[in-house]
Amino acid sequence: MKIAILPGDGIGPEIMNQAVKVMNALGEKFETETVPVGGAAYAEQGHPLPESTLKVAKEADAILFGAVGDFKYDTLERSLRPEQAILGLRKHLGLFANFRPAILYPELAGASSLKPEIVSGLDIMIVRELTGDIYFGQPRGMREAPDGPFKGSREGFDTMRYSEPEIRRIAHVAFQAAQKRSKRLTSVDKANVLETFQFWRDVVTDVHKEYKDVKLDHMYVDNAAMQLVRAPKEFDVVVTGNMFGDILSDAAAMLTGSIGMLPSASLDANNKGLYEPSHGSAPDIAGKDIANPLAQILSLAMMLRYSLGKTEQADRIEAAVKSVLKQGLRTVDIFEVGTTKVSTTQMGDAVVKAL
Amino acid sequence: MKIAILPGDGIGPEIMNQAVKVMNALGEKFETETVPVGGAAYAEQGHPLPESTLKVAKEADAILFGAVGDFKYDTLERSLRPEQAILGLRKHLGLFANFRPAILYPELAGASSLKPEIVSGLDIMIVRELTGDIYFGQPRGMREAPDGPFKGSREGFDTMRYSEPEIRRIAHVAFQAAQKRSKRLTSVDKANVLETFQFWRDVVTDVHKEYKDVKLDHMYVDNAAMQLVRAPKEFDVVVTGNMFGDILSDAAAMLTGSIGMLPSASLDANNKGLYEPSHGSAPDIAGKDIANPLAQILSLAMMLRYSLGKTEQADRIEAAVKSVLKQGLRTVDIFEVGTTKVSTTQMGDAVVKAL
Ligand SMILES: CC(C)[C@H](C(=O)O)[C@@H](O)C(=O)O
Ligand SMILES: CC(C)[C@H](C(=O)O)[C@@H](O)C(=O)O
Repeated sequence: MKIAILPGDGIGPEIMNQAVKVMNALGEKFETETVPVGGAAYAEQGHPLPESTLKVAKEADAILFGAVGDFKYDTLERSLRPEQAILGLRKHLGLFANFRPAILYPELAGASSLKPEIVSGLDIMIVRELTGDIYFGQPRGMREAPDGPFKGSREGFDTMRYSEPEIRRIAHVAFQAAQKRSKRLTSVDKANVLETFQFWRDVVTDVHKEYKDVKLDHMYVDNAAMQLVRAPKEFDVVVTGNMFGDILSDAAAMLTGSIGMLPSASLDANNKGLYEPSHGSAPDIAGKDIANPLAQILSLAMMLRYSLGKTEQADRIEAAVKSVLKQGLRTVDIFEVGTTKVSTTQMGDAVVKAL
Repeated sequence: MKIAILPGDGIGPEIMNQAVKVMNALGEKFETETVPVGGAAYAEQGHPLPESTLKVAKEADAILFGAVGDFKYDTLERSLRPEQAILGLRKHLGLFANFRPAILYPELAGASSLKPEIVSGLDIMIVRELTGDIYFGQPRGMREAPDGPFKGSREGFDTMRYSEPEIRRIAHVAFQAAQKRSKRLTSVDKANVLETFQFWRDVVTDVHKEYKDVKLDHMYVDNAAMQLVRAPKEFDVVVTGNMFGDILSDAAAMLTGSIGMLPSASLDANNKGLYEPSHGSAPDIAGKDIANPLAQILSLAMMLRYSLGKTEQADRIEAAVKSVLKQGLRTVDIFEVGTTKVSTTQMGDAVVKAL
């Protein structure tokens, strides 16, 4: 098993250290290779996703990714900014299926900005399509408006597009995820306005014929944003496009109030995947040994489960995380009066001990 | 003053009746003309926005709009569905500036799904661009994918585009709104991914030079969705494009838990406007005399203020609404133990009495 380790920027390296520590404590041999990505790669090699990094990622069985981005790269031209690395990895590796769980651990119910009765026990799985939509659609750029009321003015433009095979494969992935959970799937679109998402709705409806045991609902994205705020527990598995998924999965994660706890997986057609925390690189707290490493550690667990077929090891890690929460150990982001504040390193050590 | 009244579908007519009652009680003469729109217009005349309705709307000084949409029209082809009426009115009348306040009335703090300390006193103004973006961008449709990995497959596509004058005018409107409030403006974009919104950010930054008294922040849309959930009171005026505004304004409205209270205004370059509740047509409760008419009544107040220059009358209506809330009168959507449940009609009557 070859695992590529891409720590990245900001708090990436320090939370990755904890995940690697946990991996090493599992008592199995993993071949790992650590390579720079994002701002760190730009600083070293002039590009956020150097060929050498991409090669290591391509050849690995799975990728454990930290986070990318830092204020200091904000003024670079777009193609050199750290975020381009994650977009490039998704596209080059065909990681079209993004799983973003929003789970509220009972011990952390108080961290949410929502009332406890609205969120306690929350457990949503957002399946976001990750290699299509307006993120990658060509043509895009700057031009003189070719028509319309502002013909001749400078304009920016992008193309939203989804082809039938792209919608079909993410729909299959989502229906199968729903089959393993409560057999309910909500497909989120904007079919009342967008041609792309009218087509999305038609294709998802067609794929549904193969999953008659799953109850499928369609919901407009604006309504989905409302229902996430009003009654998030009414959702179970949600499938949507790249752009809407970006917005809704972050909103769903924030409902828990503990985004420092949430891992994610981005898979290709063969379940090879990239695993990363749902939170970002938080450059403002980098290097202080205060970041929460649990999302990174839980990303490792997801990797063992989805890409490496090591369910038992994944279970062990997840149980260890639950156990440190039960012990009352908290990094500052999830700290509450009556619990014990620990550092990044201490949290990593505690998980190792609980294994 | 000529006012076009477009009650529409679902609960539209019954809440409009209350608003008209309030208008008549102001003791001023308004010339009104009531015309069908949405499903009601389709049923009568075969089109959701008949020429005759559009003509009345165009010739009026302001438009009071109820709501459109009903399950029974869901199977019509898209161009005949009720929503097309509102999209058509926006486009034909050039209503590019949509004001959507999210205000939490102190009496209704309990209705929110968020903790009281997170939302009490919430007062956000979302300024959404309403005639551009991917809502109207051409080309759009269905085709064989002309390129890319799925070349030759059937695909749906849409075009996102914003020209400089479109961004400039909505930015001016938003900066001016911020000047009248706390002098803080958050511009929401996705400049890290979309060419359209990199340009948006550049133009908004340029317009900012004319409003040096306003503090401008830029925020990515996924982060904005998170911050709305985490700490909504950190926002004051928010400006964004049509698609992101659709999603964020609904999320913001739902934070209050009382979307039945929220009006909206959609203005053209001369402050002529269309005024409508932020909620929809709620066909499931139509005709039962239980819908909350206050968003419609507050939309009338907005109309008096923004388009007709009748600030004093607007103030009177808003004060009357506050007074009925203080009296403990509640329609079912905002009812809590200890308050008095009233019907749509009774609520309208109470506002008239409180005037
Ligand atoms: C960094 C950015 C390009 C990225 C996205 O928009 O997909 C991020 O927000 C995410 O959700 O992983
Ligand atoms: C009905 C629909 C087309 C409309 C929109 O998407 O703009 C609605 O959601 C709104 O926000 O007014």
